[in-house]
Amino acid sequence: MGLDIKSELSNRATETEKIIYKFLPEVYGMQRTIFDAMKYSVMAGGKRLRPVLMNETFKLFGGKGDAVNCFMAAMEMIHTYSLVHDDLPSMDNDMLRRGKPTTHAVYGEGMGVLAGDALLNYAFETALKSFEDTTTPTELKVKVYGMIGGQVVDVESEKNQSEMTEEKIDFIYELKTGALIEASMEIGAILAGATDEQVKLIESVASKIGMAFQIQDDILDIEGDEAVLGKPIGSDERNEKSTYVTFKGIEKSKEEVKRLTDEAIEILKKLPYENEFLVDLLQYLVYRDN
Amino acid sequence: MGLDIKSELSNRATETEKIIYKFLPEVYGMQRTIFDAMKYSVMAGGKRLRPVLMNETFKLFGGKGDAVNCFMAAMEMIHTYSLVHDDLPSMDNDMLRRGKPTTHAVYGEGMGVLAGDALLNYAFETALKSFEDTTTPTELKVKVYGMIGGQVVDVESEKNQSEMTEEKIDFIYELKTGALIEASMEIGAILAGATDEQVKLIESVASKIGMAFQIQDDILDIEGDEAVLGKPIGSDERNEKSTYVTFKGIEKSKEEVKRLTDEAIEILKKLPYENEFLVDLLQYLVYRDN
Repeated sequence: MGLDIKSELSNRATETEKIIYKFLPEVYGMQRTIFDAMKYSVMAGGKRLRPVLMNETFKLFGGKGDAVNCFMAAMEMIHTYSLVHDDLPSMDNDMLRRGKPTTHAVYGEGMGVLAGDALLNYAFETALKSFEDTTTPTELKVKVYGMIGGQVVDVESEKNQSEMTEEKIDFIYELKTGALIEASMEIGAILAGATDEQVKLIESVASKIGMAFQIQDDILDIEGDEAVLGKPIGSDERNEKSTYVTFKGIEKSKEEVKRLTDEAIEILKKLPYENEFLVDLLQYLVYRDN
Repeated sequence: MGLDIKSELSNRATETEKIIYKFLPEVYGMQRTIFDAMKYSVMAGGKRLRPVLMNETFKLFGGKGDAVNCFMAAMEMIHTYSLVHDDLPSMDNDMLRRGKPTTHAVYGEGMGVLAGDALLNYAFETALKSFEDTTTPTELKVKVYGMIGGQVVDVESEKNQSEMTEEKIDFIYELKTGALIEASMEIGAILAGATDEQVKLIESVASKIGMAFQIQDDILDIEGDEAVLGKPIGSDERNEKSTYVTFKGIEKSKEEVKRLTDEAIEILKKLPYENEFLVDLLQYLVYRDN
């Protein structure tokens, strides 16, 4: 594992980017600036974890064909929209993401708001392209709404640290990161024809992975290598942001990431199907450095 | 007409508000601030023109039942989201709308961004509630996307006045105001079972009405009564914003509003159906003072 899975994930990310790219609007005409800002935001890199997880879950259950493609693209657009708005001056005020200037840093704050809005809209439009011939209607939209709720509690929590509790942290992580990872894996499973019971198993796998992923993010914000991360570390402390690590300490947090990941893989192995890459990928998330 | 239609429109707005209210999330739990901000934004008043036009077009074509309700609510949520984001400091920086403090003025800028996002999401979720049992899938989403493009050109135009042209004004108005009014009336017609040809006629009615409505907005920004409008006049001039009136002058603009409205009513009267209130409403839009 280790290096191999990292380069394999990078290959899948590149494949995924090609799929997403096809669904983005052409940059032309009087609206070219927003199309350009949308494209800049989406194509600025990243692990493409959500669409990759969707596709691998789709394949796990024997999914064939392109049905999953527009959902993969839509999911990454929604993830990107949430990052673009998170980075705004009125939110986290971040100028750098993955080593590149954030959308509002390049195009201005107003365009940052609008490019995010457009991506959110366009994600629905993109997902709807499959509505006529698939049976996966509401999952994506319902989960996304939950994510927004998570961000709000996050923003409120920053304003009012005295009320921050461990329970609230769970709630935020569940909605903010968990919701989209759960939705991604569930959509993959449902599109491939998984049973309700199997979809439930996948939901619990995704829920644990989402939580582990977010805690690992908090750990990397303390122990990460800025060059590898592509952004400055210590931002949570500077912003006086309580994280999982604040409550549990770094060692217990690392144990929790490992425990959650082990449990997720255990559940995954109960299924009558196999996807070696997916198992490796989930394991990798524990050791990732960016 | 005149006073009568104004009070009748006010009655329909109140009825419409009751429908929208039922679709808004309950204000409770850890996410109560965003639910509260969403509700504040949507329930802050307004003519409810888009859902009223949708419902009246629905009735024009003999539509029965509640199928139109969730689309009425979704449309007003989308309209509200666009206003909330338009009012942001990084956009038009307006502190007052309909005589009340804007969302970001009450809840802060970050919450203004998020409440808008949540309304946009929630609109899709609300509209999707009808997806299982109606045949109106893509109209709403496609049109909304166009509206965002319009706002972007608007923002760009403000930054770069030298490039502003009459052609660009048409494009902005078509996308920004026209798109949602067209979508509203088309959805009403389609849900009621109108033929493709009839939907096309309604589209051209709505297109003219949308343009007339936006030009009337520009006229009111110059000649309106601040107390009736609920906001300061002269904002376009202060923001050095070129409008239809800038290019055509106020008299020609008034003539254009009347011409567009007359043409719209002419087309409407060609239909084998009648809705007296709808005709009065379109006529009223020419003489409206807010």
